[in-house]
Amino acid sequence: MTIEQERANAELNPSTEQAAREQAAREQALVDTVLGSFGESPNARLKEVMKAVVRHVHAAAREVRLTEAEWNTMIAFLTETGQTCTDTRQEFILLSDVLGLSMQVIGMNNPSVANATEATVFGPFFVEGSPRIELGQDMSFGAKGEPCWVTGSVRDVHGKPVPRARIEVWEADEDGQYDVQYGDDRVAARAHLFADDSGEFRFWGMTPTPYPIPHDGPVGRMLSAVGRSPMRASHLHFMVTAPGLRRLVTHIFVDGDEIGWKDAVFGVKESLIKAFERHPSGPTPDGRVVNGSWSDVTFDIVLAPGT
Amino acid sequence: MTIEQERANAELNPSTEQAAREQAAREQALVDTVLGSFGESPNARLKEVMKAVVRHVHAAAREVRLTEAEWNTMIAFLTETGQTCTDTRQEFILLSDVLGLSMQVIGMNNPSVANATEATVFGPFFVEGSPRIELGQDMSFGAKGEPCWVTGSVRDVHGKPVPRARIEVWEADEDGQYDVQYGDDRVAARAHLFADDSGEFRFWGMTPTPYPIPHDGPVGRMLSAVGRSPMRASHLHFMVTAPGLRRLVTHIFVDGDEIGWKDAVFGVKESLIKAFERHPSGPTPDGRVVNGSWSDVTFDIVLAPGT
Repeated sequence: MTIEQERANAELNPSTEQAAREQAAREQALVDTVLGSFGESPNARLKEVMKAVVRHVHAAAREVRLTEAEWNTMIAFLTETGQTCTDTRQEFILLSDVLGLSMQVIGMNNPSVANATEATVFGPFFVEGSPRIELGQDMSFGAKGEPCWVTGSVRDVHGKPVPRARIEVWEADEDGQYDVQYGDDRVAARAHLFADDSGEFRFWGMTPTPYPIPHDGPVGRMLSAVGRSPMRASHLHFMVTAPGLRRLVTHIFVDGDEIGWKDAVFGVKESLIKAFERHPSGPTPDGRVVNGSWSDVTFDIVLAPGT
Repeated sequence: MTIEQERANAELNPSTEQAAREQAAREQALVDTVLGSFGESPNARLKEVMKAVVRHVHAAAREVRLTEAEWNTMIAFLTETGQTCTDTRQEFILLSDVLGLSMQVIGMNNPSVANATEATVFGPFFVEGSPRIELGQDMSFGAKGEPCWVTGSVRDVHGKPVPRARIEVWEADEDGQYDVQYGDDRVAARAHLFADDSGEFRFWGMTPTPYPIPHDGPVGRMLSAVGRSPMRASHLHFMVTAPGLRRLVTHIFVDGDEIGWKDAVFGVKESLIKAFERHPSGPTPDGRVVNGSWSDVTFDIVLAPGT
């Protein structure tokens, strides 16, 4: 409760003004005692972080006047969130994602630099050791989805091409599943390739489609209870690295996507929304003949200087 | 970062002032977007609580400029905390306890009323269905510890005796263990009894001794990393109930205790510290002869009106 709220409460019922003042003083004294308990910490950074956690946890509980029943619900929710985690599912990352904390941490640690491409969430579905493809090859490896011809360039903030930049790409299939979610050993819709000597790249992927984050656990139930959708905006993941430049972890999003700004994890940024142009069945820029529709998109990447 | 801190940073390096302003605006815009995502919540209270959580989680992360490595450590810590929970161990309650949140919630939900006895943490070791003892009997049931003769009264805030108030008592043995921590079926150092028609009570317990909260898990490691002790101040638990009066959950603490105000869970309140008088081997107030030292203590309880 802010001082103003306390004052308003007290004015409504003047006989309780003194009691409210004493209650607020007791609550603040407890916060101060807890903060003081970190005074002997040999780790200055951990002390700083824990003190901020204490101040904000107490402030949140005091503002909403958390009840004992709600505290019990919170303990049960956090416990279940921890117990839902497995080798292939990280429910606390999901919680951080849907609270926007993941995006906040990414934004703080990858501040905008000039015209450099913006970062977004890493997500839980990257896998080390993806197959290498050559320029122009197909990264879908049989995953279901509409073919998409992706071209672009990698440059530094001065416009200088970045030859041989390493580009990792991964995405969900049209059923909204990443390969690792099938629980077999398939490797599909993920690959790495290298830009050419002029920093240009091209490959076949799939037009991204929207899909829900795993929502059969406590985080999904919380979203449902507050009327929020678990859907992620359609996207294709990129991770781009080159010596001397800042690693870029980002997505491109589909202009006109039905989810768009309602992305469950707040990953969408204006600069990352790209026009995916749809084409009927027929020949493609690289001479391939596609049965059924296909799309194409261009993503010109600018890497920030390394730190 | 507060506006003042941002201003100070900007003045140190005027060329970055504009960039810092834009970064802060982007960070705040993300917070606002996340807050807005709760706009359709059908549950007004959950919306209020979640919005407070979002504001304070983001504020804490922004204040300390949380790094991506620290975010990873936090995710791993919370995950392990959840996975350390079992039927007989609640590591998230322990975390709430050592951050002082449990005491804050108790204090908010059991505000001081006149001269009523203050509440403190419930703790994880209460068990329903304790044995009933008669006035003057022994609640230790063979648990190790120095005998302690406990007497007192139960009254309302007007000084009127509360006849037949129900009193639950439980405590750790002199090895710092509650019966349920031994993993066998023993029931010891816990009981319930009823005050007499004048609201008076008396029973044999044990002089409380200090003990550590379970500290072999993530919460214990956190305490160790910040130089905090896992020890709880010596205490004897009480839960007192009577029709029409507010349930009291509290402890009494031992005056002169070596842990005292450094209690790991911030449960100590001045009014709950009692003089435990030590006596040499010999006859006791009720005529029992104790081999070895014993103590006695008085606890006069005042119950707040029911709500």
